[in-house]
Amino acid sequence: MDNFNWNFPTEIVYGEGRVNEIGKIAKSYGKKAMIATYKRGGFLDPIIDNVESLLREAGIEFVTFTGIEPNPRAQTIDKAIEIFKSEQCDFVIALGGGSVIDGSKYIAATGFSGGKSWDYVVLGDRVPREYTGAYPIIAIPTMSASGSECNAGGVLTNAETNEKSFSRSAYRYPKVAIVDPGLLTSVPLSITKDSCVDIFSHLIEHYLSSQAESEFADRATEGMILTLKENFDKIIKDPTDIAVRGQIALCSIFGWSGFQALGRMGSIPMHSIEMPLSAVYDLPHARGMTIIIPPYLKVMAEAMPARWAKLARRCFGVTEEDDLKAAKLLSVKVVEWLKDTESYLTLEDVDIPSDQFERMAEDVVRMFPGSEPSTTTGPRPITKEEIIKIYEMSQNSHLTYS
Amino acid sequence: MDNFNWNFPTEIVYGEGRVNEIGKIAKSYGKKAMIATYKRGGFLDPIIDNVESLLREAGIEFVTFTGIEPNPRAQTIDKAIEIFKSEQCDFVIALGGGSVIDGSKYIAATGFSGGKSWDYVVLGDRVPREYTGAYPIIAIPTMSASGSECNAGGVLTNAETNEKSFSRSAYRYPKVAIVDPGLLTSVPLSITKDSCVDIFSHLIEHYLSSQAESEFADRATEGMILTLKENFDKIIKDPTDIAVRGQIALCSIFGWSGFQALGRMGSIPMHSIEMPLSAVYDLPHARGMTIIIPPYLKVMAEAMPARWAKLARRCFGVTEEDDLKAAKLLSVKVVEWLKDTESYLTLEDVDIPSDQFERMAEDVVRMFPGSEPSTTTGPRPITKEEIIKIYEMSQNSHLTYS
Repeated sequence: MDNFNWNFPTEIVYGEGRVNEIGKIAKSYGKKAMIATYKRGGFLDPIIDNVESLLREAGIEFVTFTGIEPNPRAQTIDKAIEIFKSEQCDFVIALGGGSVIDGSKYIAATGFSGGKSWDYVVLGDRVPREYTGAYPIIAIPTMSASGSECNAGGVLTNAETNEKSFSRSAYRYPKVAIVDPGLLTSVPLSITKDSCVDIFSHLIEHYLSSQAESEFADRATEGMILTLKENFDKIIKDPTDIAVRGQIALCSIFGWSGFQALGRMGSIPMHSIEMPLSAVYDLPHARGMTIIIPPYLKVMAEAMPARWAKLARRCFGVTEEDDLKAAKLLSVKVVEWLKDTESYLTLEDVDIPSDQFERMAEDVVRMFPGSEPSTTTGPRPITKEEIIKIYEMSQNSHLTYS
Repeated sequence: MDNFNWNFPTEIVYGEGRVNEIGKIAKSYGKKAMIATYKRGGFLDPIIDNVESLLREAGIEFVTFTGIEPNPRAQTIDKAIEIFKSEQCDFVIALGGGSVIDGSKYIAATGFSGGKSWDYVVLGDRVPREYTGAYPIIAIPTMSASGSECNAGGVLTNAETNEKSFSRSAYRYPKVAIVDPGLLTSVPLSITKDSCVDIFSHLIEHYLSSQAESEFADRATEGMILTLKENFDKIIKDPTDIAVRGQIALCSIFGWSGFQALGRMGSIPMHSIEMPLSAVYDLPHARGMTIIIPPYLKVMAEAMPARWAKLARRCFGVTEEDDLKAAKLLSVKVVEWLKDTESYLTLEDVDIPSDQFERMAEDVVRMFPGSEPSTTTGPRPITKEEIIKIYEMSQNSHLTYS
């Protein structure tokens, strides 16, 4: 069991219709808000209209910044920061999915601390700049996937260099997250499916990447995976089910909060391997994770067979007693599950060719270096060649998982 | 699934030897501390000496208040508040178990807000006084049971009226909880056993007292119960095992944090029924819970058989498919478990007679009234007669659980 520091300062305000409390909550944080959200023209429009109207009723001034991309770009965030300052805003209301909330964190913290948003991300050996504080953030998630509404992390894409990276700062915890399952029903089923797999990717990332033992963390993670699987099936049958949306929201929030890994926090190799897909091809993160998970689980099964086997047995009904054999069954079972939920994806399905594999693998080992040369961190150092193999196996489903 | 607001603002600083960080941490909260702890002469003495020495090294002034009882008395707390003020302390270091930490919360919050500590507790129809703030609290738990080091609750005993009650205030969250498993090994095995059952009582309290459904909360609770049971067995074999102490600490912290009941927080009838035992006979809370749990589970099994059955199946190996039959097996299995761990207790074992049952049951329905006359809250209103029956069944083990 490893040492750790942990808390969860963001107040979750959970319940259908509780978005109506935004005016009252906002008043605690200042007179003028920046609403940060996606561009208009999508299914979020009525939600944006409603929040604007609620703020008007409460007498809160605001400016709405609608330009945040699904993979938020540093260049866009820097523009938002200029507007935040010139409009003399006091706080940010992040209204959207993980990309909007991540982007809002960079607005609030970079706006307070100075410089450019990209100065603060992890990038190979570079020592990232450190924030000195942040303007308050109120998150109103409109989908459940990243858990960003209650954590300190955030990813960012540099559109000039086609790099995607992340950072973490305690200054960036949202003060409040209004988790209103009534808003979450607005998400189309296809995006909901991607999101559920994204949540799964968060839940297994630390579970499979540390040698340290913490049964508490394992049981917590397994409980969330089982809850997620049960509610994934239910949401496919009825995407308007409020309680089911609520259960998935809890899995997304706590699945990437550190809680799921107390005493055994490890590295995040699957996320590192996915990042170039989003950076180079602007693929939504959740879809990238769906593509990367199966080949990763297959290629790395021998790195820590006991943990692969534990997950296979406790969450995927595997009864095989030999650890290595059970470990190898995990990718098979996960692919079955993805196919059962009609979520399975390959690079072919999203029209991504193979000509950048070498360069993408190079980016991974350069940006997120492991303990040995030309590797990235994972359950053991993962070589560039293995990363290329994972991309190759992601190309199509000819490679059977059985 | 019910609406809720939730956060976990206390920073857990977990790891062996991390008590050594107290000087550095304390500096953030002022120049002079009150160390609140139990009376000297017990197994905590070397730990108290060490914390005093660490504060001296860090140049933090302090006054040590050693008078807090295992059931902290309002009268004692009020004395501590006078000293806190006359000594011009800036913050409280709560060094001890749940009673010390609970007491410290009343010192910090009542000292800040004025009046007497008992003014703030729940007491029948009385509207308790509300705090206006609190001095900072740093908790250093020396045992794992109450989870008080990371929550806002606190119980208090009025030695003049023989009443015991509680209150909750967000002002009272400790800023930091230094959870050092090296300190936790100082706890004698007999107290450790009581504590494990106390943690279990917290974990099942909400699980068994709300009709609302939240699979997330159920799975979280079940995961902690399974982790607790596994580590209870281990700690009996080796009370010095640091990692096992750490796992039990996590169960105690999150088992009474609200996390275990997100979306289905219910009432706490077992605690209400135990409180008069502590109040009248000064029985340590954990021992009282150990005595009350089995008869409570037996008497109330028919109130919500589906939930009793779920717990019996998922955590106690019951395979019976009929809910009511499975529900009735829960108390049997719990008694088996308590006997296996040599934790089972009756009122006879602690020399408590039957002559106060009527008066104690009267106290419960008066202090914690249910929705119907002469009842207390629970999975359904619990009558005074049922409470007396639970006390009667707690007398000795003649009443077999099979």
